[in-house]
Amino acid sequence: MYSIAIHGGAGTLAKHLFTPEKEKAYQDALALAIAAGDVILKNKGTSLDAVQAAITVLEDCPLFNAGKGAVFTHDKRHEMDASLMEGISLKAGAVAGVSNVKNPIQLARLIMEKSEHVLLCGKGAEDFGRLNKISFEDDAYFFDELRWNQLLQVINEDGAHLDHNVNVEIPDKKFGTVGAVALDVYGNLAAGTSTGGMTNKRWGRVGDSPIIGAGTYANNATCAVSCTGHGEYFIRAVVAYDISCLMEYAGLTLELACKKVVNDKLVKFGGEGGLIAIDTKGNICLPFNSEGMYRAWKTHDTEINTSIF
Amino acid sequence: MYSIAIHGGAGTLAKHLFTPEKEKAYQDALALAIAAGDVILKNKGTSLDAVQAAITVLEDCPLFNAGKGAVFTHDKRHEMDASLMEGISLKAGAVAGVSNVKNPIQLARLIMEKSEHVLLCGKGAEDFGRLNKISFEDDAYFFDELRWNQLLQVINEDGAHLDHNVNVEIPDKKFGTVGAVALDVYGNLAAGTSTGGMTNKRWGRVGDSPIIGAGTYANNATCAVSCTGHGEYFIRAVVAYDISCLMEYAGLTLELACKKVVNDKLVKFGGEGGLIAIDTKGNICLPFNSEGMYRAWKTHDTEINTSIF
Repeated sequence: MYSIAIHGGAGTLAKHLFTPEKEKAYQDALALAIAAGDVILKNKGTSLDAVQAAITVLEDCPLFNAGKGAVFTHDKRHEMDASLMEGISLKAGAVAGVSNVKNPIQLARLIMEKSEHVLLCGKGAEDFGRLNKISFEDDAYFFDELRWNQLLQVINEDGAHLDHNVNVEIPDKKFGTVGAVALDVYGNLAAGTSTGGMTNKRWGRVGDSPIIGAGTYANNATCAVSCTGHGEYFIRAVVAYDISCLMEYAGLTLELACKKVVNDKLVKFGGEGGLIAIDTKGNICLPFNSEGMYRAWKTHDTEINTSIF
Repeated sequence: MYSIAIHGGAGTLAKHLFTPEKEKAYQDALALAIAAGDVILKNKGTSLDAVQAAITVLEDCPLFNAGKGAVFTHDKRHEMDASLMEGISLKAGAVAGVSNVKNPIQLARLIMEKSEHVLLCGKGAEDFGRLNKISFEDDAYFFDELRWNQLLQVINEDGAHLDHNVNVEIPDKKFGTVGAVALDVYGNLAAGTSTGGMTNKRWGRVGDSPIIGAGTYANNATCAVSCTGHGEYFIRAVVAYDISCLMEYAGLTLELACKKVVNDKLVKFGGEGGLIAIDTKGNICLPFNSEGMYRAWKTHDTEINTSIF
């Protein structure tokens, strides 16, 4: 028995602006990412490998705000964050504010396995990656005309942009993040998240994606969670670990814990977004309180499912 | 009714190496910091102001690994982290990997109140501080001969140092961090933490101190917590929020929650350190599983207490 779920960010184009072609492009990309994780799980690979493989596909796809598709910062750069965690050992790795790293999720994995640390930031993290021979790409690799226009549109405004102020013609304008959670045949859970942050972000802002407990958490005693949403609220609400604690300490099922956090606590708190979660029985929950969330899931005995709204 | 508690880090000199003069210097510094918070609380100031004031005194004191007393990184620099959170609003501010900022806790407060963000990192965070006119100091202000010798002793070894490998003559060689928690007369909780990290740290390593939920957490529904210890374990165990969840979801008292996390879960997990915690009744807990923890506490109707072992 195994299961996997992924997300490509919460907050999408309004449904009436979504052409059938656009919708198909997203669904195809999500299916490709699920398939990359599925083949690993089917061949008795680990949930950690499956999570990393699925996220790598999403990072390599320009449609999503992570890796190649990362949005531009105020300084016209790309600053990416990622994290992952495995439920059997509670080991975790995370990276924040790195540029030119082809696959930030790979760097997070490397930090988990080859350093004594959990979280490395900025240039130091890049140096650690270089020393360990991960792939870097030049700025041209990350350039995308849509993303560039997205920046130009808001660069003279004050804030960083997660919201409707960005041209509605541009998809995943909001909480662009990708993530994956998986249960493998050994009964082990894993979770991972990767993001390019917010268009026009400044001041070295870091959201919830690289924060263990906020954007990512995995524990074989409870569940694996990857979040997407307004990162500041997700940090303050310690969202991913909250799901786990509601299961472990309050005895809630995965479904009830997800409902309570995403559709009750976060709504009252003003935190827009969603998450994907999985438990050791292979149950999958994909709750969100935004208009939509790019998502896909598959279990050992079902086909690939994709959904947006 | 009000209460305040502070810590100056877990892991101290072995007791037999601690001269009476050294012990008095630490106790005097801790008392000074408590007094700075106490006077605010006594005059009906907020817990957030009291926490910031106490931490500022500790950051300005070269005895502790935060602010002026921050340890050297591998690159012979100082990279500091800090965070704070208030329990009434769950608002939080945090900063990671900043250099030359005189009082990182002030920058965290500024981020909480003047930005739309929670966590800012590195140069971007410094730029935000400069724009808002916080105080910077040159490298000479942060230079300390003990810290410098501490670095030279370990710089050619591989890892960053939290542990016994650093000369036992040098105090707070281990988990150098400062923190404060307080309850004010309005019944509001607050928590804050500040650190210079680990001697010889590399790769832009960030520990638990700036991570909301790991090193710092405050919620009027439960408690306020500031941690000190082996940061990687505290991140993976989401320690500060775990105390809160054990109270909120499992119905434990502050004391039992602290005992379970610090003296049971963290010990089994291998996470050395401690924390200070306070609830809305003014109960204070100061658990640690290391040899000692610099700490002090005071309530509205008691004198200042200080302790190390």
